Amino acid sequence: MSGSEIMTVQRQLVDVQNGSGDVSVRLELTGEPGAAAPCLQLPFNPADHDLSPEFRLTKFGDIRGKGMKPSRDELRPLLTAFAPCGEEPAVTQLDRLGLSLLESSNMLCPVVEDPYLMGRIACASVLSGIYSLGVADCATIRMTIGVSNRLEDKEREVVVPMIIRGFRDAAQAAETLVQGATVVSNPWCLVGGTAAAVCSHHELVPPDGATVGDVMVLTKPLGTMAAVVVAHWMELPERRSRLLLTITEEDAVRAHRRAVDSMARSNRVAAILMRKYNAHAACDVSAYGILGHAEVLAKKQSNPVSFVIHNMPVIAKMSTTSKLTGNAMPLLQGLMPEISGGLLVVLPREQAAAYCKALEKTEQRQAWIIGIVESGGRTARVIDRPRVIEVPAKETGALW
Amino acid sequence: MSGSEIMTVQRQLVDVQNGSGDVSVRLELTGEPGAAAPCLQLPFNPADHDLSPEFRLTKFGDIRGKGMKPSRDELRPLLTAFAPCGEEPAVTQLDRLGLSLLESSNMLCPVVEDPYLMGRIACASVLSGIYSLGVADCATIRMTIGVSNRLEDKEREVVVPMIIRGFRDAAQAAETLVQGATVVSNPWCLVGGTAAAVCSHHELVPPDGATVGDVMVLTKPLGTMAAVVVAHWMELPERRSRLLLTITEEDAVRAHRRAVDSMARSNRVAAILMRKYNAHAACDVSAYGILGHAEVLAKKQSNPVSFVIHNMPVIAKMSTTSKLTGNAMPLLQGLMPEISGGLLVVLPREQAAAYCKALEKTEQRQAWIIGIVESGGRTARVIDRPRVIEVPAKETGALW
Repeated sequence: MSGSEIMTVQRQLVDVQNGSGDVSVRLELTGEPGAAAPCLQLPFNPADHDLSPEFRLTKFGDIRGKGMKPSRDELRPLLTAFAPCGEEPAVTQLDRLGLSLLESSNMLCPVVEDPYLMGRIACASVLSGIYSLGVADCATIRMTIGVSNRLEDKEREVVVPMIIRGFRDAAQAAETLVQGATVVSNPWCLVGGTAAAVCSHHELVPPDGATVGDVMVLTKPLGTMAAVVVAHWMELPERRSRLLLTITEEDAVRAHRRAVDSMARSNRVAAILMRKYNAHAACDVSAYGILGHAEVLAKKQSNPVSFVIHNMPVIAKMSTTSKLTGNAMPLLQGLMPEISGGLLVVLPREQAAAYCKALEKTEQRQAWIIGIVESGGRTARVIDRPRVIEVPAKETGALW
Repeated sequence: MSGSEIMTVQRQLVDVQNGSGDVSVRLELTGEPGAAAPCLQLPFNPADHDLSPEFRLTKFGDIRGKGMKPSRDELRPLLTAFAPCGEEPAVTQLDRLGLSLLESSNMLCPVVEDPYLMGRIACASVLSGIYSLGVADCATIRMTIGVSNRLEDKEREVVVPMIIRGFRDAAQAAETLVQGATVVSNPWCLVGGTAAAVCSHHELVPPDGATVGDVMVLTKPLGTMAAVVVAHWMELPERRSRLLLTITEEDAVRAHRRAVDSMARSNRVAAILMRKYNAHAACDVSAYGILGHAEVLAKKQSNPVSFVIHNMPVIAKMSTTSKLTGNAMPLLQGLMPEISGGLLVVLPREQAAAYCKALEKTEQRQAWIIGIVESGGRTARVIDRPRVIEVPAKETGALW
């Protein structure tokens, strides 16, 4: 017995640039890590890694809907201890130095079966908070890994290094140093961390500058969590037969592939373009859903404005499916959580189309104008019957 | 269903200084939060907080020795993905700014029953890495809380805010801003976070300057985890009867009180004194035990030195008890994990006694010269039959 239920080990990745990635792992994504070109996802086959064919990474967490507390409402009373409170990402003035320290954190349970992709997704979601400030150069990212104590020795030895490699490759693609990992033993697998950047205050886009007449742009479609849940339900016989009334197996698989592509994509280009196109404010979209995050952003505004969402770009078929599952997936209400979602960027009306075009040109991925900034009381809402934009609009067999 | 098994909420504590702490909670420690004066620990009585008398925070974790993987040996293969690797805390050169970004992280399962004290202990352990660089002013600390999904609603509403308050009070005492909390749902309770500081390189004590002839000082006694495990075993009938052959109930309670006092104490004063007394290197002592951390520190040295540990200051009675439990508690081998342990500071021989005296004067707590720096191959060892220093040397009824 070692006498401690938790072992904390930290490692500094001194030489990310020269780190020799495992090529067989790298090839699971075509092209360079982090490249914006459409990525080919090979199915993750546990047997290829000497694991039991039944091995499922997502079993070491809970995407089934049980144990999903704390919900947002449950959290509120817990966090009164932090009142008065602001929001992520944290911006700390280093008065003595005339600089700002920016930090953002996130932590995820496994949402995909492929450990390498899980690492990439976690890294993208941690960096996202810094990017929402229009800062593209993140100094460091620290990884936190919860290693499930239900993993067999062999599973642990295969899975954890793959997660780390995915995380590291994504950080490398973002030109960010992985500065250490905190490893804890835990019933569930957890992957996340904290990203930090230091810059002059004038180098960031403060999240409070929305002005009446601005518009809101969303840089990734909604429906990531919806697609993950649908894929999971497809493996449960009873759920599956009901789901098949609303969506074909093939469409569910396509939606999941698109969700994975979207979750693994970093918001870095979206951040770089924020400054170029004079963005007034932004946030990243994750656990609260698009409306929840819009509400949080609205509260931060210095002008008396409110955000009205008219359009909902959603991964194809997820909108119909979510409607037919009732309250289980409040996607069109804007309350369905997203995983590693896009940036919600507030831009001057005359710059928004150019921002979207530039993003599309650089990343081969669409962005959408989804709403407008009106005069108001720092609230946000989705209009009745928002226009649903299927992404992609037509099924061509291509990823997007 | 919210559709996400994990909810991440971030809160910025804008106004730590004016935060009105819950007085009834504060009073569980006498004096100001973080004060070095001996602290009176009232027993934590769940019923005082409308919880069931059977409520035990430590049940929402695992200090029993099960599920304590990953051990250090198990971790090594996992972390090859991070090679080449350094160690905690992370020091990142911000070349563009001519500054260093320092970061340290930690994460703990509940090791005490009192949620408020658990928060304080977690905060002290997170800050410790920054302090080991001789930097006493930490810019921010971000909290990570795993909220056990096995907690009843009522329990969650009582326990989590208490943990946060303890963490916040400890941060406040350290003049550090709590900049946000990441809250995740998890089977176990987890408390930890990441601390960050930005400074000029000349303001820190790099951990690589040990010189032949230096001595090593330890600023807290060993035996924190040992005392926690003993307290836990005292509640298990079979373990208890065997334990009582080696230690009285009263001595076990005293050892536990001392361990809590030690774990909750910050290493900030030890850090301030490092620069004053010209320290050559330091690390904090936690999950690897004193020898494990000495080994890690030895590997970092620029001079060809090795560390030899002669003295083992141990919380009274823990040394005898650990011997009689066989390999379960490798305390005198230097391998028993510590929780929020002290700093291991390498000092010039002529400064070491003055360092210890200054610490004792400021904190009313002893520090000890425990070993010497010899010429060698960057290794560390404990001599055969190290001298055990009982802390305190005599039982007077006082805490120390």
